[in-house]
Amino acid sequence: MGDARRYFALPSPFAMKRGGALAGAVLAYETWGELAADRGNAILILTGLSPSAHAASNADDASPGWWEAMIGPGKPIDTDRWFVLCVNTLGSCKGSTGPASIDPARGDAYRLDFPELTLEDAAHAAYLLVRDGLGIDRLACLLGNSMGGMTALAYLALHPDSAATHISVSTAPQAQPFAIAIRSLQREAIRLDPNWNEGCYDGQAYPVTGMSIARKLGVITYRSAMEWVGRFARIRLDSDDRDEAPFGAEFAVESYLQAHADRFIHAFDPNAYLYLSRASDWFDLAEHGGGSVRAALARIHVERALVLGVSTDILFPLSQQEEIAEGLRAGGAEVDFVPLDSPQGHDAFLVDIERFGAAIGAFLHARPRT
Amino acid sequence: MGDARRYFALPSPFAMKRGGALAGAVLAYETWGELAADRGNAILILTGLSPSAHAASNADDASPGWWEAMIGPGKPIDTDRWFVLCVNTLGSCKGSTGPASIDPARGDAYRLDFPELTLEDAAHAAYLLVRDGLGIDRLACLLGNSMGGMTALAYLALHPDSAATHISVSTAPQAQPFAIAIRSLQREAIRLDPNWNEGCYDGQAYPVTGMSIARKLGVITYRSAMEWVGRFARIRLDSDDRDEAPFGAEFAVESYLQAHADRFIHAFDPNAYLYLSRASDWFDLAEHGGGSVRAALARIHVERALVLGVSTDILFPLSQQEEIAEGLRAGGAEVDFVPLDSPQGHDAFLVDIERFGAAIGAFLHARPRT
Repeated sequence: MGDARRYFALPSPFAMKRGGALAGAVLAYETWGELAADRGNAILILTGLSPSAHAASNADDASPGWWEAMIGPGKPIDTDRWFVLCVNTLGSCKGSTGPASIDPARGDAYRLDFPELTLEDAAHAAYLLVRDGLGIDRLACLLGNSMGGMTALAYLALHPDSAATHISVSTAPQAQPFAIAIRSLQREAIRLDPNWNEGCYDGQAYPVTGMSIARKLGVITYRSAMEWVGRFARIRLDSDDRDEAPFGAEFAVESYLQAHADRFIHAFDPNAYLYLSRASDWFDLAEHGGGSVRAALARIHVERALVLGVSTDILFPLSQQEEIAEGLRAGGAEVDFVPLDSPQGHDAFLVDIERFGAAIGAFLHARPRT
Repeated sequence: MGDARRYFALPSPFAMKRGGALAGAVLAYETWGELAADRGNAILILTGLSPSAHAASNADDASPGWWEAMIGPGKPIDTDRWFVLCVNTLGSCKGSTGPASIDPARGDAYRLDFPELTLEDAAHAAYLLVRDGLGIDRLACLLGNSMGGMTALAYLALHPDSAATHISVSTAPQAQPFAIAIRSLQREAIRLDPNWNEGCYDGQAYPVTGMSIARKLGVITYRSAMEWVGRFARIRLDSDDRDEAPFGAEFAVESYLQAHADRFIHAFDPNAYLYLSRASDWFDLAEHGGGSVRAALARIHVERALVLGVSTDILFPLSQQEEIAEGLRAGGAEVDFVPLDSPQGHDAFLVDIERFGAAIGAFLHARPRT
């Protein structure tokens, strides 16, 4: 598979918004395509909570990325034209510094000694990579999905002139109580797992139960009831596949959730999950607009924006996408608000490439490479 | 507070649909109003998963019931006119026989030796109470909310001529995969709690964590994102009320969920919860219609029906209420399908008494007391 990650050393110390600082922190990132001589063709992608920087296959890592169908030569995000950059969020565990990283001051993993993390910290770290690491003064486009969409809004709030265009995908200008409730319960499942042990787990005593419940709740809220009626209906597992434990799984939808959980539990650091989940709850763009989300959005200077959302998304409802579109428009941007009827809910941007690819491809195509 | 419960002894043995039988089982129920001489004015109410038979205050128990605003003299379900009866579901823990009851064969609680429970068993037990316990050949109205709505459909499928009218509230003619996924995760939270101990918990070692997660997930899916935006927004707890544990609660919505969980954890038997939850997943009216939900509904003989649902209900979507209405209509009933815009989601029938009371009151008023 190889490893295509490159690393950017953040200034040390890197001060965090809510206090504390990181020493010797790095961001992992991957790139596709060629940066133009004028550095004017860069697209930065900020991810949801769990993805790595490996958004697509490339020369150093041929394995498919999490947005493989979207990024590449001739694809909606066309790497023959654009220099594409994807960052593993600060605080995550896929190469960037996070709670599982070694704290140089102690020679041991940070765990809960990692400073409080906000999406503004993650955004500013990505901004420094772009400006200082790659010498790019202004992105051609800043694109954020889900939590990455919130991070992108933080990026633009902190650095209003840093992108010519913006693509906002299924995100929120502030965390709303339904999403907070879901994430709070995911965190509680991990925290109440005795193996979490206030963050001091290891491979032998690992919060498998908490991570499983958290991930399944994630998958349930990332998809939609409508999709599942068509996909799973009341299909039962073959008797060979049933869980014979009391009240064990017997429906196909239960085994689907279990498969998702099994792939995730050991692939993501539980403490990183907690930090990023709480950072999402804390996110409120109104803090950048004197208490008003709309004022904060109107201060962002992009020429054009594409705001995408899905009618079946229960975690980031269309009303929040519309709020983003209207706020950016109030700031002078030419905004395309495109509500989609994808049946897959919040995750549609990962699977409904037909709809999302068409919208993103058209938006990017319309921008001349100046 | 007193205790208004009366008890009906089921035939012993009481054979269960999926095998096994109960010996010496009872149903707890409460009543309001007077049964007419012709026994033609009886309304049976079947409840959701957790409520008791105490739907409203009465002479023997002055404490408010779970549908206090709906039932009483001059209220939408007017006890000056109707004889109202509410049953604690078979398999529950509020007086009716369930997993926490003593198995007379062993002299110890059933726990997981309780036979597999279906909503058909619960329905048939209630039918026997009505027919044999109270001598009522035909109900004036059978009303079911949520899980009780599924139980009511089972009742009518098993005994198609047993009610003159039917009120169906926020329920489902079969469990769909989104609801199955939610309930499966609630059961998993309890099952994976080490204190559940395959059903052998006690007051000292009790699955508090599992019950807390299960209840919170219930509350999240019983309400609606729209309601919570208005109700909680991003209100934070006072510093005195915050949970200082790592990643502890700091938003008002989190404390609301905790209060709901705290009231529930020790008030409901975890094994009863598991049995009733699984019975809901198993429910499929199509089993009574040769594989077709519509055929099963069309076999039900009621003169009139009122089908109520709420647009913000994510657990029992309006599409399922419409399916019930159309099926009953195909069976010859005069059906009022009333989709409501209550913001409170699935729980609206408990709190939006203005909308639900108006619809139910008008429907019941239109039926002459013959």
